[in-house]
Parts: sequence; structure tokens; C-alpha cells
Amino acid sequence: MSTQLPAHDSIVFFNGSLMPEKDVGIPIRDRGFIYGDAVFDATRTFGGRTFRLKEHIQRLYNSLRYLRIDPGLDPAEMERWSLEVVNHNHPLLPPGQDMWVMQRISRGVESSEPGAAEQPTVLIESHAIPFARRATLYRDGISVVTPSVPRIPPRFLSPRAKTHNYLNLIMGDLEVRDTDPNAWSVLLDEAGNLTEGRGSNIFLVKDGTVTTPRGQFVLEGITRGVVLDLAAGLGLPVAETDLDLYDAYTADEAFLTSTSLCVCPIGKVNGAAIGQGTVPGPVTQQLMTAFSDLAGMDYVEQYLAHLPS
Amino acid sequence: MSTQLPAHDSIVFFNGSLMPEKDVGIPIRDRGFIYGDAVFDATRTFGGRTFRLKEHIQRLYNSLRYLRIDPGLDPAEMERWSLEVVNHNHPLLPPGQDMWVMQRISRGVESSEPGAAEQPTVLIESHAIPFARRATLYRDGISVVTPSVPRIPPRFLSPRAKTHNYLNLIMGDLEVRDTDPNAWSVLLDEAGNLTEGRGSNIFLVKDGTVTTPRGQFVLEGITRGVVLDLAAGLGLPVAETDLDLYDAYTADEAFLTSTSLCVCPIGKVNGAAIGQGTVPGPVTQQLMTAFSDLAGMDYVEQYLAHLPS
Amino acid sequence: MSTQLPAHDSIVFFNGSLMPEKDVGIPIRDRGFIYGDAVFDATRTFGGRTFRLKEHIQRLYNSLRYLRIDPGLDPAEMERWSLEVVNHNHPLLPPGQDMWVMQRISRGVESSEPGAAEQPTVLIESHAIPFARRATLYRDGISVVTPSVPRIPPRFLSPRAKTHNYLNLIMGDLEVRDTDPNAWSVLLDEAGNLTEGRGSNIFLVKDGTVTTPRGQFVLEGITRGVVLDLAAGLGLPVAETDLDLYDAYTADEAFLTSTSLCVCPIGKVNGAAIGQGTVPGPVTQQLMTAFSDLAGMDYVEQYLAHLPS
Amino acid sequence: MSTQLPAHDSIVFFNGSLMPEKDVGIPIRDRGFIYGDAVFDATRTFGGRTFRLKEHIQRLYNSLRYLRIDPGLDPAEMERWSLEVVNHNHPLLPPGQDMWVMQRISRGVESSEPGAAEQPTVLIESHAIPFARRATLYRDGISVVTPSVPRIPPRFLSPRAKTHNYLNLIMGDLEVRDTDPNAWSVLLDEAGNLTEGRGSNIFLVKDGTVTTPRGQFVLEGITRGVVLDLAAGLGLPVAETDLDLYDAYTADEAFLTSTSLCVCPIGKVNGAAIGQGTVPGPVTQQLMTAFSDLAGMDYVEQYLAHLPS
Amino acid sequence: MSTQLPAHDSIVFFNGSLMPEKDVGIPIRDRGFIYGDAVFDATRTFGGRTFRLKEHIQRLYNSLRYLRIDPGLDPAEMERWSLEVVNHNHPLLPPGQDMWVMQRISRGVESSEPGAAEQPTVLIESHAIPFARRATLYRDGISVVTPSVPRIPPRFLSPRAKTHNYLNLIMGDLEVRDTDPNAWSVLLDEAGNLTEGRGSNIFLVKDGTVTTPRGQFVLEGITRGVVLDLAAGLGLPVAETDLDLYDAYTADEAFLTSTSLCVCPIGKVNGAAIGQGTVPGPVTQQLMTAFSDLAGMDYVEQYLAHLPS
Amino acid sequence: MSTQLPAHDSIVFFNGSLMPEKDVGIPIRDRGFIYGDAVFDATRTFGGRTFRLKEHIQRLYNSLRYLRIDPGLDPAEMERWSLEVVNHNHPLLPPGQDMWVMQRISRGVESSEPGAAEQPTVLIESHAIPFARRATLYRDGISVVTPSVPRIPPRFLSPRAKTHNYLNLIMGDLEVRDTDPNAWSVLLDEAGNLTEGRGSNIFLVKDGTVTTPRGQFVLEGITRGVVLDLAAGLGLPVAETDLDLYDAYTADEAFLTSTSLCVCPIGKVNGAAIGQGTVPGPVTQQLMTAFSDLAGMDYVEQYLAHLPS
Repeated sequence: MSTQLPAHDSIVFFNGSLMPEKDVGIPIRDRGFIYGDAVFDATRTFGGRTFRLKEHIQRLYNSLRYLRIDPGLDPAEMERWSLEVVNHNHPLLPPGQDMWVMQRISRGVESSEPGAAEQPTVLIESHAIPFARRATLYRDGISVVTPSVPRIPPRFLSPRAKTHNYLNLIMGDLEVRDTDPNAWSVLLDEAGNLTEGRGSNIFLVKDGTVTTPRGQFVLEGITRGVVLDLAAGLGLPVAETDLDLYDAYTADEAFLTSTSLCVCPIGKVNGAAIGQGTVPGPVTQQLMTAFSDLAGMDYVEQYLAHLPS
Repeated sequence: MSTQLPAHDSIVFFNGSLMPEKDVGIPIRDRGFIYGDAVFDATRTFGGRTFRLKEHIQRLYNSLRYLRIDPGLDPAEMERWSLEVVNHNHPLLPPGQDMWVMQRISRGVESSEPGAAEQPTVLIESHAIPFARRATLYRDGISVVTPSVPRIPPRFLSPRAKTHNYLNLIMGDLEVRDTDPNAWSVLLDEAGNLTEGRGSNIFLVKDGTVTTPRGQFVLEGITRGVVLDLAAGLGLPVAETDLDLYDAYTADEAFLTSTSLCVCPIGKVNGAAIGQGTVPGPVTQQLMTAFSDLAGMDYVEQYLAHLPS
Repeated sequence: MSTQLPAHDSIVFFNGSLMPEKDVGIPIRDRGFIYGDAVFDATRTFGGRTFRLKEHIQRLYNSLRYLRIDPGLDPAEMERWSLEVVNHNHPLLPPGQDMWVMQRISRGVESSEPGAAEQPTVLIESHAIPFARRATLYRDGISVVTPSVPRIPPRFLSPRAKTHNYLNLIMGDLEVRDTDPNAWSVLLDEAGNLTEGRGSNIFLVKDGTVTTPRGQFVLEGITRGVVLDLAAGLGLPVAETDLDLYDAYTADEAFLTSTSLCVCPIGKVNGAAIGQGTVPGPVTQQLMTAFSDLAGMDYVEQYLAHLPS
Repeated sequence: MSTQLPAHDSIVFFNGSLMPEKDVGIPIRDRGFIYGDAVFDATRTFGGRTFRLKEHIQRLYNSLRYLRIDPGLDPAEMERWSLEVVNHNHPLLPPGQDMWVMQRISRGVESSEPGAAEQPTVLIESHAIPFARRATLYRDGISVVTPSVPRIPPRFLSPRAKTHNYLNLIMGDLEVRDTDPNAWSVLLDEAGNLTEGRGSNIFLVKDGTVTTPRGQFVLEGITRGVVLDLAAGLGLPVAETDLDLYDAYTADEAFLTSTSLCVCPIGKVNGAAIGQGTVPGPVTQQLMTAFSDLAGMDYVEQYLAHLPS
Repeated sequence: MSTQLPAHDSIVFFNGSLMPEKDVGIPIRDRGFIYGDAVFDATRTFGGRTFRLKEHIQRLYNSLRYLRIDPGLDPAEMERWSLEVVNHNHPLLPPGQDMWVMQRISRGVESSEPGAAEQPTVLIESHAIPFARRATLYRDGISVVTPSVPRIPPRFLSPRAKTHNYLNLIMGDLEVRDTDPNAWSVLLDEAGNLTEGRGSNIFLVKDGTVTTPRGQFVLEGITRGVVLDLAAGLGLPVAETDLDLYDAYTADEAFLTSTSLCVCPIGKVNGAAIGQGTVPGPVTQQLMTAFSDLAGMDYVEQYLAHLPS
Repeated sequence: MSTQLPAHDSIVFFNGSLMPEKDVGIPIRDRGFIYGDAVFDATRTFGGRTFRLKEHIQRLYNSLRYLRIDPGLDPAEMERWSLEVVNHNHPLLPPGQDMWVMQRISRGVESSEPGAAEQPTVLIESHAIPFARRATLYRDGISVVTPSVPRIPPRFLSPRAKTHNYLNLIMGDLEVRDTDPNAWSVLLDEAGNLTEGRGSNIFLVKDGTVTTPRGQFVLEGITRGVVLDLAAGLGLPVAETDLDLYDAYTADEAFLTSTSLCVCPIGKVNGAAIGQGTVPGPVTQQLMTAFSDLAGMDYVEQYLAHLPS
């Protein structure tokens, strides 16, 4: 498949065809806008190659199923168009950069006629990962703060579906960042267990065991799954289990994972240094190295290359 | 203020100026779209005149404050531009119709640069109320079903802020409407108390007392407030209190309120007829009449005029 | 042991002896009637032979222990009298039919004298399974709806004891059946996890793994245990775990189990088709076949033989 | 209406007619027996005269409505038959005694045919109040213990409906009485607030204010309502509000109310003496006197007359 | 009563007599130390005169009652000894200073013999209020942060009893102060409602109404009660009600009260400025003035006099 | 290291040195006293030899970390000083006796100066185990009662940290012991699961499987861990899992573990006999024997030797 779109413009897939990104707008009565009635997923590239794209798209279709939205494309088509977008847009980035490719599907424009079927809105777009903004995190460790707003539990809206309803996580961010602009929020659940940050999963390491919150209460990150596999492959005991602030404060090491962060060490939780206070700890370092090997690229070096000199 | 926009086109206010609606799209990385990180409010017209516009805008500014978004306009400007939109667009409707005017403010396009300030996206638009689709409700009463998904409680995200995160309410709707396409969902809270439907408040009448759920757990509808005032003015005892399914099943009468519905009788809750099974009950009828008087127009007649013949 | 009771009458065991069913009534002040202060268990026959009777009676004695009722008979006697009832009553059924045999023990008649010991009421009775009423379920799949009333959690009254207090489950049924008369209710718990229906357990199948809610939150069905064993015997991964509506909506297959249903496929949950929408799915079919093999009879055929022609 | 029933036998109303009590049994598959799927109410007599019978029957019909049972009789008929039972049976009591008259309505015998309508079972019966067993309570005060099993909250099954599902309250009783045979249980709710005992409401008095738990969480006793009215009539501040063990332990006085107890002082809660440790306290005494005046009989004297000599 | 203690030493009351503070130590197995099994109360002086001492002591005796500790002194004695301590110690302070006087009663030394009665430990001591450390709060407003650790609800341990178990509040403080050393924590409850800080109550002002959390969920501060009375006396509507972060973020004004702070304005909650961002707001100012009038001393001036020059 | 302290006096380690116990008092403003802001741990001796001292000290340092207290000593020093205290004090006991050695570290004296660092208070002391008071427990079994006050859940204050805040457990004890002076309280959690008693863990045995509540909700006793290991070593299936009163009432055996009790059989729970009513049951007996073997001493015999003759 080839596209005749201008090579110097970023393109997107929008409702069936590739278009210059600058020509696309979301209808003002699209339910994705007025209600956040939409799902998305995000894959990152390493040197321009997507990583675990199929798994991300599988998760996207579970999100769609949860919201009873039929995207009108099957997973193979979704994957193919995503690669088209990457292949066109990645060469437009400066050298050494990488990007996310995101699929976003809303239920479509609010219908005004009784019984009128909604046509889903389907968008596939890409944009650059902000390496420079995050570089110091790999040197100093992330400062995690647990805000007072808890994560919405599954019975109200499952965190396993990746939707356009992010206000609960954003309320956590606002609370934390207006107190400490450099802190990252990780929300507790109603039982006081750690859940997730905005787009990230948290891991603790204690006495050599690698643990992370149970899958029912968080978006089950693809990177989270990769790291659990890597840890098992390294012979480390792993567990998906309830973890609370006692676990965090007494942990030896801690780190966040996300599609773009991969594995990034945590330095402090609520102002208390984790473990001996140096990052990354030895187990975290092992996992970072193993992840780079798997991704085929030293992703930590890519981040650290953006440190302010 | 005058506008030179084509008289035959609906217009909207968008980021500082009036524009033809057809020319406006939401940026694909607007946080209102990708996160539902936005607030809105909606006022209706009666014969082209807005009703309680100031109160709606005051609630809008409380929603903004809750999300820490500065819209860049003060309430008086927001009101003025809203009236401009109404004054231009209402004459475009067929005779006898009315509409909503809605203000929508998002935090703006996701910034990619560190520390870059976000510019809010501000939209004011109007659209027609679907009288025909709803006409039978005033004749037969609404069939309310309480879905198994409960309403998100205030500690996770306050229902008092009217935001673009509607998925919890939509999950309730999907559950109910795929079982009974004509039913309206009203969600319970985690304690089993009635909360609200998608955009509506519920009232019960028992032994002459008019009750509605407490304001902390619902969007405090402007119409809800008007009805509480009207009931008090009619000498009826009123209470904002916890109401559960025992209250609903043993009530004498029940009704929903919303900006566009005003007061509309409920016929059944979960398949059980309310009271003697005829709608509207006498207290509901009193309130409907009083509301029409206040609105300066027989809104029930306006709905019933659209009954299929 | 032989009984001299009229061969043409159904008999029951009542407080120590076998009697014609028509001669037995429960005292009006029996605590089983006025408080539901009683326990029961139910075994079904396959071609007149009881299945897992010992396990059912063991569960019955756990229920008794939970309520601190001493039935005055030991488990072996309870089993022996149950078989007497079956052996007398099964021949009275039309050919090809089967039945439940149920033990019911209440704390006895409310004592009016201080300190008077209560004498338990012990009843063993049988009655026919309504094959005709359920035949279409095996062809079309069950339509499951989760009502808004949640299942009473163990801390208030343990669902593991099979008692005469069924109103919570009945409230769920009323809510669901007055909306859709053909739907079966499965209640959620307070965390939004699936629990059980009135007398049935629910299973999901996803990516080949067979899952069912944890035993603490449901009556641990004997058939549920059999199916877990059968699945393991077939080499399928099994798990007793928390399952919510996200799991149900994204499952590949789903089915209910009960003493009389054995394994019966689910077609829809809250109006959303499960998996590809055809029933039974392949794993469910495997389990149905395995169950028939174990029961020594094609129970599905027995149901389907009652389909209206 | 006259009845030709033997004057020396207690009679009951059963499914449409008056019958000797000894001739009546509940069918073994009556849903009132097998599921506790039934409601009831209980009125007491004072010198043979019923007290607040109309209010009890009104509450009965609310319970019926909650369970969607149609008794086939209207409230006036239910009242008339209740009086028939009283008028026949009260003269059979020894002198100076009084009794309860109870209406019990179940959904009827479990139907075995699809779509067969259930016929409700309607029973009205009376029996003597155990004055002797309770006499010491009025002298010494009741010893209240709060068991660890909490009261089922309204979202699972409303305590405002008086049903045949009493196991939650009975579990509380068993726990308490097997530790202290003379103690009465009053269950806490899930928030640790006092709710009710088996058939009784609790009141606290502090600094002259009379308080009792909120009506949504308990059966709203008719006597409870009478006492609130009496207290208000005596010029005492009254409140229906959340009350926890801090309130109980720091109260000046406490008492239970029920249809048969009327007002009875509490001496201890969980082994801690209430107030100054003498019963009844002055406010309780005022209310006991006022209740006797209203009932037209010194009910405390009636109880104390049964003290062992 | 006169004491012969050295005038230049602070004294305390300890287990029956006045002693130099420097001579007193708590036994190492005192339950007040090893379990926090003790209660206390604290009154402040204004120009050396105690304020509402009787009310503080009444609250102390409710706390004792809740824990079933008998102090061996009656309230009048407790008050008299407290005044002795104040009268001796206040003259030892520098001019212009004031102090707390605190009663602390533990259950006494852990008994090692079976059945040995515990002897309570009774301590009355005083110490200086840190005016200098707090002076800027009155100029800039307090920065309140709600930590992720919620306040222990009443069912586990009532906050209305002022005990030596402060770790829950201290965990909140640690979380907040290691992020922002100048912030004060105010804990939310499990429903997300504001409760209290370590020793302080929170008030919000919105549209002229003065509100504070309900008394069941906080230590009901004596100053809190005074302020509610003062507000009512000024003709302001007051309410004790559930208040959450939506209320805080949309409030016009906010302030803390405590025995030593009296009324002190809040400037920010979780980094968001309250109201127009200037402190104190007009209603808060009114209440501060009224409090000074009642205390007979300009307490704000006393604080501000300690501002660093 | 040698100490020159009087041989006939018990000694303690206090803030850096060994001292006669009688010379030590806790400062009246020590946060360990006024707030319970302190942690501790307790090891017992068997024939004068400490058991698992290193594990206890490791747990102590986790508790310190949770509360952000730096004791100023490392674990090896803490262990060494603890042994010094034991070695000096154990010979002072009568023959055949044993004792606890306890480390207690508080945050130190409340600082009155802004920014002043707190100096922790460090105490190591020992005292005799009350064998005589407990001897009958090993003969008759412990009578366990679950009070209505539930255990504080981890989100408010983690039970895994062993702190000086014991009032929640003490409230449970008061409630139980003022009803039955010989009963031991074991608190439920908010979900109705068994947690722990004051200083003890509970185990159930059912069908040969040994179970105990999950570690997140209790202090993870060192003895609890030893018993889990012993059971596994004996080939018994073990599980850390949620256990409620249904499990307790239907268990075959039950026992408590603690540092000083080791393994002690439970005879009744809430007045209901466990299993066949004889103690210890066979599995419990196996574990008691195995524990004695491990401790190098028949600890049961040591207890039973103190039975009243």
C-alpha cells in the first residue's frame, strides 16, 4: 500500500484514509470530545520500529468491547494503518528520536435522530516522546507522591479499559504537582493499595522479589507484562499482589514502567527515600538492561543523551 | 456587538470569535478530546429566551475552579457570547422549536514543551432539543431502570463538576438500553441510594413530601433547584435526603428533572409501577404547571405537540 | 429398611418418619417459616440415581454448624433417609424425568417458655426438575443480567451456608425479570465482582482459562467443584478469582452451573453477546460432554428432548 | 361478621377464612418457608385492645410493595380480620395477659409450571406475650451487647421491610447469647453506628436530648414513632441521627422500644454501665409513664407483676 | 490551697500531688507509654487566664468514659489542680506569653498479677505556646495539604475521644511535611470528606455560610463550638455537614480553629488558592475579631508580634 | 562488653547505656507517651536463650522505617544490647521462668523550637512471662470472642508496624472482657475476616489444611512464620488467606500463636465449640510438639507446671 501524501507533513489515519495531520479536526459533537466516550492505545517505537504493536491492538479491542463500540476495522487493518502512519512520520523526526503511535476510536458524533446508528470516529496519529523533559528521571529517580484522591475502582469504570476519561488521574496530578512540580502521582485505591500513575505501573522490589499491583485495579501495561516476564526469565520471584504504603516505605527498590518510560527508577515515595537512596537499585538495573536488550536499543542511553549539559 | 456571519449558518463562539459551526474542529490533541479534561454547562431556551443562564454560568465557573482551568473570560463575557450565539441561531430553528446553548472549556492542547502554559479551548454552541423523540414520555411516564454499575462517588471525581468524563453514566445507559431500549438509567451510589441519570435528577413524592437525593452526590441541577423552590412555594414539605429503592418502590409519585425535560413523570422503576400507576400524579402535575408558569410557556404542550399522530 | 407407604403417593421424611407428602404441613410458628431460620441442600438424580449425595450432605452439615442447629441425625442417617425418599418417589415420575431430593432442617417451633429447648424440624422431600421450562436455554444460551441489588457479603450472612433466607437473591430476580422475563440474574458483590445467581454459579472462559468467582463469596456449588475438576482433568488452566463486568464483556465463553443445570451456556450478559455469539463455545462444549460422561447420562439431550416442537 | 368456630380453640385467619389454629400448616413448598419470601407485622393488645393497628397494617403494605407481593386483600379487610382473630382469641388468655396479633403474607407455593401465577399465602394469628420471661428487665435494665456481625445494610435488603429473612439478626443473637444468655443483641451497621435488635429500636438520652438511629437503617418501629412524638410532646429535643459506641458509652440514659416492650430501660452496653448505673433514668421514666397513659394501662406494672417472688 | 514548691521551677500535678516537673518521669511499663492507653485534654490561657476550662474537662471525662478509665478524681478536683498548675507556672513565662495546661490520664502501669487492679496515672502539666513559629500563618494563611492517608473512622476508634493514639494523624503529617515542610495536613475520611488536622478543625465559608465537618468524625473542638456560636451570633448561617475537596476548591474562604490557634486563615488547599487569594477573607476577619473580644485579648496581635522583623 | 551494674537489680538499656530499671522514667513530653509515636518488638527466651532475636530486630527496623524514625543504632548494636539485658536479667528470675526482652524506640521528646531535630528515645527492657495466669489455656483451650469493634485497616495505620498505638485492640479487649473476663478478643476486619488478637495470630485447621489470615492485615508474627514453616515441614498444606466466621465455626481445630504463647489451642469461638470440642486437636498437637522441639524445650510443660493444684 502506498500513500501520495506530502512527505514533509505528519499524517494521520482518519475515518478510513490517510490525511495530513493539519487538516484534521474532531467534530464538536463527537462523543469522544463531549463525553470522553472513546478508547485509545499507544505503542512506542525504538529506532523507528514499533514494539509489541499486536499486543497493544489486542488490548485496544478489549477496551472497545467493554464500551460496546464497533470500530468497523478488524485488528489486522488497525495494525496495518498504524504501521503506515509510523512509516510515513518517523523519518520526519530529528535523528535519534522516537515516537508514540496512537489509535483513538470514539463512538462518533452524537446522533440527533431517534434510532440513528452512530458511526465511530477512528484516528491513528503519532507524536514525539519528550526525552529531554524526562532525562533527569533516569539519573535521579522519580519522586512519587500519592495524592489524597484515590483511583476509581473497577466497579464504577474499569481501569483495564484505556479510555478518554482521565480526570480521576488528572485530579491526582493536579494535587501533587501544585505542591511539588517535579513529583509524579501514583494513586492509591480505596483500600490504600498502590494502583497506577497516569499511564504508568509501579513495581516494588523487596528481598529480591519483584511485585506489582494486581491486574484488576490498573491498566495492565504491556511493558508491565514484559517486565514480569523479564524478571521471571532472570530467575527472580514475581508476584501480582496488593501493595500498600508500608510496602513502599520498606521496599529495597521501586520503579515505574510505561510504554515510553520502559523501566525508570523511583527515588522517593512521599518524600521518603527508597532503600539505600541510590538509583537504580541492582534489581532495577538488571531489568533495565534486559529491557534494552529486548527492545534492541539502549533506551536509557537515549534518555540520558538528553540531559542538560 | 454585531456579527457579520452568514445568517443561514449556525454559528459558534470558538476561542475568542464567532464562526460558522461548520468551520470548527477540535484539535486532535486537545485534552478535552484525549482525556475528557474539560467542563461544560447547558442552558435551554423557551421560545428563544434563555432560562437561568446566569446560574448555569456560575455553576460552570465552579466546575472550572474544581479542575483548576482558567477560561480566560469572565462570567459576564461568557454570558454575553452565549446570548450572541442564541440570538443568531434560534431564528434558524423551525417554528415552535427550542434549543440548548452550551459552553465547553477544555484545558487546551496537550503541551509538548516542558513548562509550556496550556491555552484553554473555549467553545459556545447551540443545538435543537429532540422534542419528537421524547414526546411519549410525557404521556406514558419514563421507565427508569437502575443499572448494576453504581455512580462514581465524590471522592474519586465530584459529580458536582459537570465535566467531559461521562463514561460511568454511559456504562449505566448501555447496560439498561441493551436490555430495554426505552428505559432511562438512574444510577445508585455505593450505599444503594439513588443518584442521577445522564443529565437528570430524580424526585420522589410520598405522603405529600417532595424529596430528591442530596446535593453532594449528584450534579445539582438548576432545574432541580427551581423545582425545590416551586414545591416550597406551593406549601409542600421538601427534603434533600438519602433515598433508596425501598423509597422508590413505596413512593406515591416520581419524576425526573433536567434543563430540557423540566419536570417529566416517571411511570415505572425497575418494572414496578409507581403509586397508582397513572402519570402524572397530582403533585407532579402541580409542579409541571408551576414550572410552565415560571418559564412563561407550556413546555408540556410543546412536547406533546410532537406526539406521533 | 422398608416403608409401608402408599406406592402412588409421593412421600417425605418428616421429623423421624416417612409420611405421604400430602399429610405434612409446617407449623405456623416454625422458625423456618417465620424467620427463614433453616438450612437445606439439594441433590439431583440422573436416571433415578443420586449424584454426589455425600458431598451435598457434608455441605448441609456445615450449614447447620454455621447456624448452630443440631439436626438430631448424623450424616449417614440423613443420607439413608434421602435415598429412601428417592427410591420411593422416583418411580412415580413419568419416564425420562429426574428430580431433586432436598433436606430441610429448621431450628424448630419458636419456644414460648423460657429456656425451653427447641426441637429441630427435619424434612426430606423430592420434586421434579422442570426440563421443559429450561430446554431453550441449552439451545440459545442463558441471558444473564446483573441487577442493581448486590449480593449480601459474607460478613452479614455467609453465602456459603445454604439457608432459607433468599430474599436478597429474590430481589435481584424481581428487578431483572420485571424488565426481561427470560433473563436470569447474577448478582455483583459490593466490589462489582460477579457472585452467583439464585442457585447457580457462573464461569468465564478467556484464552482457554476457566475461571469462577472465589469460594468465600458464593455458595460453593458441588457442580462448581465437579466442573473445576473436570476442567483440570482436561488440561485446562483453572482459577477461582475476582471477576468483574470487564471480564464478562471481554470473555470468549461463559456458562452457569447448578445441581440441576449441570453446565449450561450463557449467551448474553446485560444484552452484550459473549464471544462470537454462538453457544456453546468450544470449551463449554468440552465440559458439557465431560459432565455427561461423569453423570452417566447425556443430560443435555435430556433437556433438549423437551424443546417445543 | 360472626364466626362459628369452637370458642375454646385459638383461631387463625388462613387464606380467606377463620380456622382453628391446630388445623393449619404451611405447605412444604411455600416460598415463605423455603426462602423466607414473606412479610409480616405485629400489633400488641393492651387489655385486649389493639394499639395502632392501622399504622402497623400500613407498614405491612409497604413491605408487600417492596417485595412486589399482592396479598389479594385491601388494608381495611386485613384490619377487620385481624380484629376478628383478636376478639376470638384474647378471651382465651388467662386474666391480665395480652398478646400479639400478626399478619403474615408469603408469595405462596413455588410454582412448578412456567408462567403459573403464584397465589399468596395469608395468615393472621395471635399468641401470648411472655411477660414472666421479661419481668426482670424492667427492674434491672436490659444488658445490651453489640455482636461482631453487623446489620445488613439497606442496599442488600432494606431493614424497613419486615420480612421472614431474620438470619442476620439471629446470627447476632447466637453470638451474644452463647456468651451471655441474658444479653440482648443490638447490631451495629458497617459504619459502626447502632441499628436495631431483633424486633427492637434503641434510644439514647444525653443532656436531655432523646436520639435514635436514622429510619433508613432500621425497621421504623411504630413504638419508636410514638416515643419520638411523646418526647416532643414533653418538650424534649429529639433527633434521628447516626449514633455509635462513643455515644452509647457516654450517654446518660438508654432504652429499647418495641411493640411488646413499649419502653424498657437499658442497664449496660457491652458490660459498661449506662449513666449513673440506676434504671430507669429520669427521662426514660417520663417516657414510660407517658406511654402507659397513652396505652390506657400501666404496662410496666403488668410486666413487674410477673417478677418471681 | 497553697503549695510550697520552688517558685522558679515549673510544676506538675502527678498522681495526687504537685511536684517539680524535672522530678517526674513516666514508668516504663505505663500503658500510656507502651500502648498510648491514655486520654488528655488541653486548655490555653489568654494573659494567664484559662478559657473554657470546664468544657475541656467535661470532654476529658467523656474520653475517660469511652476508654473505661476511672481517674480517681472528680471533674471539680481536676479543674482545681489544673488552675494550681497554671497559677504557679504562668508567672514563669516571659511577658506577653501564654501556655497550654494539659491533663493526661493513663490506665496506669501494666499489671503483672492476675486480677490486679490498675492504678491510673494522672498528670497535669503546662507548657508555652510557640507563637514565633506560627506568626507567619496569620499573615500569609496556612497552606493545607490533604495527605493520602485517611483519618481513622469512628468505628475503629472514635476521634471524639482525645487519646494518646496519634499515629494516624502523624502519618498524615509525615507525608505532607516531607513534601512541603510548611504545609499543615488535614485528613480526609474514607468517603473523601474533610475531617481534621492534628489538633485542629477546618471551616469553609461559601456565599456567607460557615460550614465545618460533622461532629462524629472529628474531635469536637471547644474552639470549634465557640466559633459556631460566634458565627450564629453574627447572624451568619452555620452548618455541620459533609464537606469534600469540591467544597474546598470552590470555597470563598477557609480557616482552621484550635485551642491555641483560635481562628487562623487558610491560604491554599493542595496548592490551589482559596477564594480571591487574600487572607483573611471578610467573614474570617469578623470571626477573628469576635473571638478576640470573647477571649478578652487580641490574640492575632499576640501572634503577629512574633513575626520576624 | 561488661557492665558494672548491681547484680540484684533488673537493668535496662536507655538512650545509650545500661542502667538499673528503677532509675529510668520516660520524659513527660516524650512523643512515645503523648502520641504513642513509637515502635517496639518483643522476643522471648526459652531457658534463658532468646529465640529468633535477629528476625524480631529486622521487623523492628521495618516498623521504624514505616514511621520514619532513625534509632541511631544499627541492627547489630540493637541485638547486642538486647542480649546484654537478657544476660543480666534472666538469672534474676526464679528457676524455670522465662521472659520477654523488648526494644522500644520513640521519636523522642516533642521539640518546642522550630526546626529542632528530635532525638529518639531508645529503651531495651525485659520482664517475666505470666505462666501461672495462662496455664489453664493449655488445658482447656482459649475462649475467643470477636468484638464488634473491627481492626483498623492498613490504609489508616498498617498493622504490620508494631507501634505504641494499641487502643483499637484494647477497645476490643474491653468489650470482650467486661462480658466474659476469661475470653480473648480476636478482631474482625471491615470485610468480616479474622485478623488478630492483642499480640496474637489466629490459625484454623480444616480437612488437614492449616490456614491463617493474610499478612497485610495483621502483625506478621515471627511465631506465625515459624508455625507456617513447621506445618509445611510436616507435609501439611498451608495457606495465608481470608478467613471469616463461617470458616471458624466449621473448622476442625483452631489455635493462637504469639511470641510467648508459641502455639496454644482455641476451645471456643463466640461460645461455639471448635471441632469435636476437645483440645488440642491432632494437627495442633503435632505443631505444639514440633515447636517445642525447635525451641529446645517443652514449652507446654513449662506452662502446665503452673496449673493451680
